[in-house]
Amino acid sequence: MTETASILTRADENLPGSLDRLFDLVRIQSISTDPAYKAECRKAAEWLVAELTSLGFEASVRDTPGHPMVVAHHAAAKAGAPHVLFYGHYDVQPVDPLNLWDTAPFEPSIKELDGGRKVITGRGTADDKGQLMTFVEACRAYKEINGALPCEVTILFEGEEESGSPSLKPFLEANAAELKADYALVCDTSMWDRDTPAISAGLRGLVGEEIVVSAADRDLHSGMFGGAAANPIHILTKILAGLHDETGRVTLDGFYDGVEETPTQIKAAWETLGQTAETFLGEIGLSIPSGEKGRSVLELVWARPTAEVNGIWGGYTGEGFKTVIAAQASAKVSFRLVGAQDPDKIRAAFRAYVTSKIPADCSVEFHKHGGSPAIQLPYDSSLLNTAKSALSDEWPKPAVVIGMGGSIPIVGDFQKMLGMESLLVGFGLSDDRIHSPNEKYELQSFHKGIRSWIRILDALAA
Amino acid sequence: MTETASILTRADENLPGSLDRLFDLVRIQSISTDPAYKAECRKAAEWLVAELTSLGFEASVRDTPGHPMVVAHHAAAKAGAPHVLFYGHYDVQPVDPLNLWDTAPFEPSIKELDGGRKVITGRGTADDKGQLMTFVEACRAYKEINGALPCEVTILFEGEEESGSPSLKPFLEANAAELKADYALVCDTSMWDRDTPAISAGLRGLVGEEIVVSAADRDLHSGMFGGAAANPIHILTKILAGLHDETGRVTLDGFYDGVEETPTQIKAAWETLGQTAETFLGEIGLSIPSGEKGRSVLELVWARPTAEVNGIWGGYTGEGFKTVIAAQASAKVSFRLVGAQDPDKIRAAFRAYVTSKIPADCSVEFHKHGGSPAIQLPYDSSLLNTAKSALSDEWPKPAVVIGMGGSIPIVGDFQKMLGMESLLVGFGLSDDRIHSPNEKYELQSFHKGIRSWIRILDALAA
Repeated sequence: MTETASILTRADENLPGSLDRLFDLVRIQSISTDPAYKAECRKAAEWLVAELTSLGFEASVRDTPGHPMVVAHHAAAKAGAPHVLFYGHYDVQPVDPLNLWDTAPFEPSIKELDGGRKVITGRGTADDKGQLMTFVEACRAYKEINGALPCEVTILFEGEEESGSPSLKPFLEANAAELKADYALVCDTSMWDRDTPAISAGLRGLVGEEIVVSAADRDLHSGMFGGAAANPIHILTKILAGLHDETGRVTLDGFYDGVEETPTQIKAAWETLGQTAETFLGEIGLSIPSGEKGRSVLELVWARPTAEVNGIWGGYTGEGFKTVIAAQASAKVSFRLVGAQDPDKIRAAFRAYVTSKIPADCSVEFHKHGGSPAIQLPYDSSLLNTAKSALSDEWPKPAVVIGMGGSIPIVGDFQKMLGMESLLVGFGLSDDRIHSPNEKYELQSFHKGIRSWIRILDALAA
Repeated sequence: MTETASILTRADENLPGSLDRLFDLVRIQSISTDPAYKAECRKAAEWLVAELTSLGFEASVRDTPGHPMVVAHHAAAKAGAPHVLFYGHYDVQPVDPLNLWDTAPFEPSIKELDGGRKVITGRGTADDKGQLMTFVEACRAYKEINGALPCEVTILFEGEEESGSPSLKPFLEANAAELKADYALVCDTSMWDRDTPAISAGLRGLVGEEIVVSAADRDLHSGMFGGAAANPIHILTKILAGLHDETGRVTLDGFYDGVEETPTQIKAAWETLGQTAETFLGEIGLSIPSGEKGRSVLELVWARPTAEVNGIWGGYTGEGFKTVIAAQASAKVSFRLVGAQDPDKIRAAFRAYVTSKIPADCSVEFHKHGGSPAIQLPYDSSLLNTAKSALSDEWPKPAVVIGMGGSIPIVGDFQKMLGMESLLVGFGLSDDRIHSPNEKYELQSFHKGIRSWIRILDALAA
């Protein structure tokens, strides 16, 4: 038995205990965007510090103006081994609408699906508690067999990833020397499919804006004032409806500045993945791509920018009917960015557009919710190729390099502020319902995810 | 001292007790649209029956499939006197947003405004509890002085006016013989201004619709699916934004069928009232008319049809940000009708328009919330002229005949089902904030309203 094989076997034997520990972490209600859960966020950070300390890390909770960071260090078995920084986040999305959950979001359980697949249910199981624990449990197996780790490991767990990471940049700046490593490993992404591991090389950026349109100085009776008084919901719907033209393109001035066409050979590689509008959208009960016309669904979600309304509200929304003209109407809008799109310019263009649509006797307020540019990682590097090979040893099919629709702002910061190349490997699946009711993480993802990190650490140290 | 003068004096002396009784009624939280307040609605009905019984009426609570009616009868002092049916409603609008109320909505109080004007604060003080109590207290003064009433009086109080009056028509049909009178008196309207009483002759109709647009079968992560998956908020905002063209006209097919231009002499009479966009909208913090271009504000609210979005919601609306693509988005939409516009045709045209805008892989549900045609009462009749003269005796300025923006469906039913002409007299003011936080009723409206009904009953019996 080779040394790696013993460590993998130990990870298999540890699985029941690994699950118990993950369940403990999922039970902590660390919703970062809602101030009511502040203490729970701290509790999650403290739980992780205790866990890492018990594994021999030098770990601590680090205060920020928002939710705390967790930082931990562990030396390598041999001098000259590479130094990796592993990043994950312990915070989770809100759980509403609660009535759509089949089981309570913070009471994790194992559920057997049709066909015998087992999944771990609960908020944060896939995004990102289950994923970050794959790395922690990989370290555990290593330590238990070898008493050491093959690489020098620094761990950074954040508690604000789901709320725009306001404290992250200042924290990286203030602790650059401590956090700088040779590579960053990030586990917050998905596989291509159940059998095919994936390394993500393109990440869309994000700009979030909340707008509040105000008209009359009070709610009005629509009989008494309707037809004469401005209705802020009408103003808002016209603004939002005007964000896209008939071909699905975003209409903001200069929105496509910095957006380049995806290289033909990359589009061709994506074609071979066999994903169609029917297969991609069929999983969520849809069939017709809704964005820019004439592009494949993979190109739309991996390589094209978007404008999406994430929330809207105004007027009477309770049971029954109320013939009111509201004083205010609000929306939360986000933009996914690609290439060299500038978040600040996009925000300014959006605000200028909205302001131009507000009648002279009405007003609008803007609230900023985070902003980050897109990231493009190399399609070919030693780090990438080492990981590709290690992953291909673990899973039924070889690893693929893909784009990614979501945003992980820290990858850009690692690049710019700490000069580190990041490796984005994750074991989520597209039907994990992250950010939705009934979030789950495949038991296979958790188990083989742990084994994958063992293989990657091993290969990096070789 | 003439007999009428003694009765008016008694009404003045009664005022403190009249206010106590109104306060008791306002304290009952009779929100008809919210099922949670069902018992409170019944309590209001029972309170009114007790009150009317104590005044010598034969009064009873009458069950319906919804909230109960109150019906009461009292004979006239002399045979041959006219028989009037007085209508009001004891139900009130919801009170949200509660945080915008200066005093609790169901704890009425008297407040002195700048300039020494006194107002009665609380939900329902103006719409319609304060108004209906003007008539009850007029009857009290009459009975206390004369031991009798000058006209035969039937009273009908409804408890579903704020939720589309679903039980009203069946109740009128089933009890037509009992409710038929010579005239209907309705007290649910406003004065022209603080000094000028008004009789309303035109009433807009109402069609209410709730729509729910559904796209994916779950909430989605906007990073993973944004740009490819349909966003129901986008679909909804495009639908709602398309309801009006650039000139403010409603775009539905056939929407203006049955809408006639207001006669020139009536528009001219309205011109003399001296109301401008600045004065009318200035009161609510606005200045620019928002509806059809090229029409006066009074024409817009009294004589033109409208489409208004009364509520909209979808996606994440809590604190912070959630990059979600919602599975559903909803809106409540109402149409104010004039002339011979057909509520059923308008509803059908709206549904056809909405359905035509739903992508093939998405769906929409409709929920009906009431529908009633517009009403036009005579601008010249014996009932109208008698009331005009009685009101002009009570108030500083002579009474005017005006249009009205809101809907009082029962007036059409009185006309069609019971063959009765209605007289619409009310003492509200345009700044009463009905349907809004901080609803109030002027103490002067309550006091002189009571005196006005004494004069009108007297004049009708003369």
